[in-house]
Amino acid sequence: MKIGILGTGMVGETIGSKLVQKGHEVKMGSRSATNEKAAQWVSKSGNKASQGTFKDAAYFGDILFNCTKGEISVEVLRSTGEETLKGKILVDLANALDFSKGRPPGLIFGTNDSLGETIQRSFPDLKVVKTLNTMNCTIMVNANRVPGEHDVFICGNDPEAKKKVSDLLANDFGWKNIIDLGDITGARASEMLLPIWLRLYGTFGNTDFNFHISR
Amino acid sequence: MKIGILGTGMVGETIGSKLVQKGHEVKMGSRSATNEKAAQWVSKSGNKASQGTFKDAAYFGDILFNCTKGEISVEVLRSTGEETLKGKILVDLANALDFSKGRPPGLIFGTNDSLGETIQRSFPDLKVVKTLNTMNCTIMVNANRVPGEHDVFICGNDPEAKKKVSDLLANDFGWKNIIDLGDITGARASEMLLPIWLRLYGTFGNTDFNFHISR
Repeated sequence: MKIGILGTGMVGETIGSKLVQKGHEVKMGSRSATNEKAAQWVSKSGNKASQGTFKDAAYFGDILFNCTKGEISVEVLRSTGEETLKGKILVDLANALDFSKGRPPGLIFGTNDSLGETIQRSFPDLKVVKTLNTMNCTIMVNANRVPGEHDVFICGNDPEAKKKVSDLLANDFGWKNIIDLGDITGARASEMLLPIWLRLYGTFGNTDFNFHISR
Repeated sequence: MKIGILGTGMVGETIGSKLVQKGHEVKMGSRSATNEKAAQWVSKSGNKASQGTFKDAAYFGDILFNCTKGEISVEVLRSTGEETLKGKILVDLANALDFSKGRPPGLIFGTNDSLGETIQRSFPDLKVVKTLNTMNCTIMVNANRVPGEHDVFICGNDPEAKKKVSDLLANDFGWKNIIDLGDITGARASEMLLPIWLRLYGTFGNTDFNFHISR
């Protein structure tokens, strides 16, 4: 499959590397077509990896991964041009933390909205699927990193897009427990897990944990 | 132990009944000393159960359980008189949902504050311990109701009060996995679990589930 990664940080690199390893063609996008971090990633990732602008990556991919910080995600997507995004699937795994009032951080979109919904509202022809945002990126791409049963949440307005993303999660990232939270308003529910995730990170001192719904 | 229950709803009744069953003396408080629901509960609960006003219950208990709705909790506590609350432990298991903007509901205290913190700020001499607010009340008092591993979160500013409440959770309610989130600011983290709890309730169609942190 052709995949566009938006963002060159640790999350983008981890997702991109895993998808290349699984045989997908991956273009990593950033503000500049010659971004150094993307160039380094391409040089070590073989001929299925490439780089470009955000627009290049969005144009290239059938499925796009939003690996930018939540506070700039809409602006980044806007920069690709709305026409570019039409009909594409965007896997939104970002979070939008608000450190303006100190720590622990709040959430930029509060409790009656979310980043996922904001992106979907801003780009109605994009199929936003919110998932993977409730764990460290090393676990996103390798569910077996955490022992025992644990879950990934998914939500979005387009059932077919959710199905495609679920298949990718299962086949490429090893996810067995995928909990469907319904339409994109479920994004506010999963984004509100971030504060306790941060708290647990502080308590445990590492990121090798994940949520599980026992029943 | 002497326990005061604030509130006569399903949560108050479930907590009160379990504590009576475990041998504690329990007074259920409400606005009126002759509240009918409290009277019914007393009549079926034996001689360790009694009823009174919120103030009576707060005066009676060494440990108090806040089983009122989060939107009225501070007002209820205020009605008991600050002197009454001095040095007492309050187990705050309430949540404060905001339905004013429709469904799914938001949280009244947003993402930079919480009910637990608001109560602690309002009554500095009360030892607020936030716990049990992330599950149905039938599970609060009977951890074995959900199979396998699952967790209860606890937080508060007073280590001794947390220890006393943890002992009660373990001995009377059967909790093995108690995760300490630190000081009372952890309340915003656990209160932000409510939106996904509500979503999962809608998805599963029942309340027999709970959060577990796998690691």
